[in-house]
Amino acid sequence: MEPIDTLITARWVVPVEPDGRVLEDHAVAIRGGQIVAVLPAAEAQERYEARELIERPSHVLMPGFVNAHTHAATTLLRGRVQNQRPGPWQPGAVRSLERRWSGPEYARDGTELAIAEMLRAGVTCFSDMHLWPDVVAQTAAECHVRASIGLLVSEAATAWASTADEHIDRGMHLRDQYRGDPLLSTHFAPDTPHSLSDATLARVRRLADELDLPVALHLHETAWEIEESEGNFGMRPLARMAGLGLASPQLVAVHMVHVTPSDLEMLAGCGASVVHCPESNLKRGAGVCPLPDLLGRGVPVSLGTGDAASNDDLDVLGEARTAGLLASGVSSTPGAVIASDLLRMGTLEGARAVGLGEVTGGLVPGKWADLCCMNLRSPRSWPVSDVVAAVIYAASSRQVTDTWVAGRRLLADGALVYLDEAAVLERAESWRVRMDGASPEAAADE
Amino acid sequence: MEPIDTLITARWVVPVEPDGRVLEDHAVAIRGGQIVAVLPAAEAQERYEARELIERPSHVLMPGFVNAHTHAATTLLRGRVQNQRPGPWQPGAVRSLERRWSGPEYARDGTELAIAEMLRAGVTCFSDMHLWPDVVAQTAAECHVRASIGLLVSEAATAWASTADEHIDRGMHLRDQYRGDPLLSTHFAPDTPHSLSDATLARVRRLADELDLPVALHLHETAWEIEESEGNFGMRPLARMAGLGLASPQLVAVHMVHVTPSDLEMLAGCGASVVHCPESNLKRGAGVCPLPDLLGRGVPVSLGTGDAASNDDLDVLGEARTAGLLASGVSSTPGAVIASDLLRMGTLEGARAVGLGEVTGGLVPGKWADLCCMNLRSPRSWPVSDVVAAVIYAASSRQVTDTWVAGRRLLADGALVYLDEAAVLERAESWRVRMDGASPEAAADE
Repeated sequence: MEPIDTLITARWVVPVEPDGRVLEDHAVAIRGGQIVAVLPAAEAQERYEARELIERPSHVLMPGFVNAHTHAATTLLRGRVQNQRPGPWQPGAVRSLERRWSGPEYARDGTELAIAEMLRAGVTCFSDMHLWPDVVAQTAAECHVRASIGLLVSEAATAWASTADEHIDRGMHLRDQYRGDPLLSTHFAPDTPHSLSDATLARVRRLADELDLPVALHLHETAWEIEESEGNFGMRPLARMAGLGLASPQLVAVHMVHVTPSDLEMLAGCGASVVHCPESNLKRGAGVCPLPDLLGRGVPVSLGTGDAASNDDLDVLGEARTAGLLASGVSSTPGAVIASDLLRMGTLEGARAVGLGEVTGGLVPGKWADLCCMNLRSPRSWPVSDVVAAVIYAASSRQVTDTWVAGRRLLADGALVYLDEAAVLERAESWRVRMDGASPEAAADE
Repeated sequence: MEPIDTLITARWVVPVEPDGRVLEDHAVAIRGGQIVAVLPAAEAQERYEARELIERPSHVLMPGFVNAHTHAATTLLRGRVQNQRPGPWQPGAVRSLERRWSGPEYARDGTELAIAEMLRAGVTCFSDMHLWPDVVAQTAAECHVRASIGLLVSEAATAWASTADEHIDRGMHLRDQYRGDPLLSTHFAPDTPHSLSDATLARVRRLADELDLPVALHLHETAWEIEESEGNFGMRPLARMAGLGLASPQLVAVHMVHVTPSDLEMLAGCGASVVHCPESNLKRGAGVCPLPDLLGRGVPVSLGTGDAASNDDLDVLGEARTAGLLASGVSSTPGAVIASDLLRMGTLEGARAVGLGEVTGGLVPGKWADLCCMNLRSPRSWPVSDVVAAVIYAASSRQVTDTWVAGRRLLADGALVYLDEAAVLERAESWRVRMDGASPEAAADE
């Protein structure tokens, strides 16, 4: 018998890669943090001698979800940016709160809270964009979760750096610090393009090419942002990115709500991917990303949540569900995006978007064992006649029982293993008390 | 000290009635199944001697949700009607499965499963439309849950009755059987109007007037159904209902996706209410009910899930969230429907729609103690800066810990009290096995 670290058997295994098949009574074998085999459970028990055997008789075992767009630490601002009456979205509302409160301690406490939430929801990897990316990286490392850390690029001074060059330099330092790390990687996270000069974007492009880093940024989220670009640069943001050589497979276009036929042509032609954030787009009244059109043209699409100040959770499965409902509803075509494609968007496509498609996102031998396990035996999702539809449309991420990153179990039987959840919640509550007690001027500033 | 049965203290109490206020550290006092007071917790502990004291230090206590449109027993068909590729909705798909499988035993097992799911999600009342309403009623009674049972009216023969008159007669018998019942009430549930003659609808109207029963039916769900009505009766379904005297405050128009300005005028004028089922409408590609327009004209709107064969859960809180996101997104107006209005739609407006607005749906003295309690202290919904936004947009119905109907605790600390959940799930699984093993002809019939 071959010795391995962990054998997980499950009623259903959905590997996502190479395709959407559902394997009954299968197992995943793990050694050295990596998947060594996906095979029938009976066969696995004959072939492997596992140090740890985990049996999940009414569960689905699948790749962990990838949250391809977070501002993780904004969990501390959860619910603070709500429209309490109908009215336009205030684009500066979240930033204004961040200017008031953000700092290294805030970034650590907020990111920990976000990681606790995501592990509970089966998310094994997130792609972040937030001030204090050094703190975000350290926190993710301490929590043993996979993350791609956004190297902020801003021409406006932030609490983290004063100039575009200083942002980039600090980012490069951070990138060097985690180079070769098995869990942490980095990507460029420039501010919305209308706020950046061609020179800055060109520097990002040169470095991204040289270091092979993804470039993820908000693109075509709002009509306003597009008008700004047209006014200042005489073109739409995506066209400007193309002109600067940034429209490439490295480009991760976050949101992409407003897509003209020529935008679609450009996206499909350059190999860029899109991060669809349907709930953020809806809640902020930004509009609806034309998901079936993007997929129809072969544009890779992953899923993200955006910030928790307004959105208000970090639940990728919830976004997959909303994406599916919305695509069917808006196109008047039931099944416009089928359930197995939604699951793939929430896992493998997310991994690919952040440049990790070779190492995570699917249950295939050689990839890191980034997995989650969900118990479908619940009045909400039972009986199961279509496993993937049950995951996407009936079950809730609350049914996730176990989450592994690189073979390490971070959520076990519904309990966080490394994070002290009570302490994380306590620190979050103390931030709430501090914010609620702040001067009215700070509140008015919202 | 005044003796009472139960005192529940909670960090937050959201009574919904008379308005959306949030009361901190309050309590609800219950005697004889009814609410006797909502007051500060400290005051309550001085005034009342409670047989049972339940303390909920990080929870929100609010009225139970009302699922204003269910076909409860279709839980046994969960997931069986999925579009596995993009294409038109097959309107007969669910009915065809029901014809194959439905019977008294099916109705009982499916309704029990639905009730288990709903109690776990804080739903205390549902308004049902299904074959074997006598069995549905008996099952609801045995589970101690509140329900309004739909008295089916169909001109086509069903397994329950052969003619329209026979349906109505059986319905009248059922209505008499439960008259005066503290938990169960009845309403007319005619088939989609294009399938019913004027004579049948006129008989329903006379009886509904005489007995003061609501009349709930699918109305303007699909463009197809409206075209059928225009072709056969020369008018849209709502106009036909008006012509037959059925457009009144007793009318509960389920779905109402397709609403012209003159439909809106008619709805606003007659006092009818609408049951919004956003997830069903989206998933089936039916379209989007113009919620902000309806509310803007003062039309009462409640929330429903529809059937689980296609939808796939019975989660009213989830529908409230989707309704809110969709309203903001489609109207490009963040906060188009604010969180406290969404909560009211999912509780008080549901009670009103089924004719129970005087006895349930809000936490006010004299109403039945139909409540649910949700723990917000979770990484997903913590910290809490806006309680109602946290309930609607951050929390999940999975955070419901306790559910009471008429003062009786049916879910206690996350466990069902009267239902044997394992047995309910086992029976559901045996139906799945039976259906999966059925002849291919039955499957092809889908």
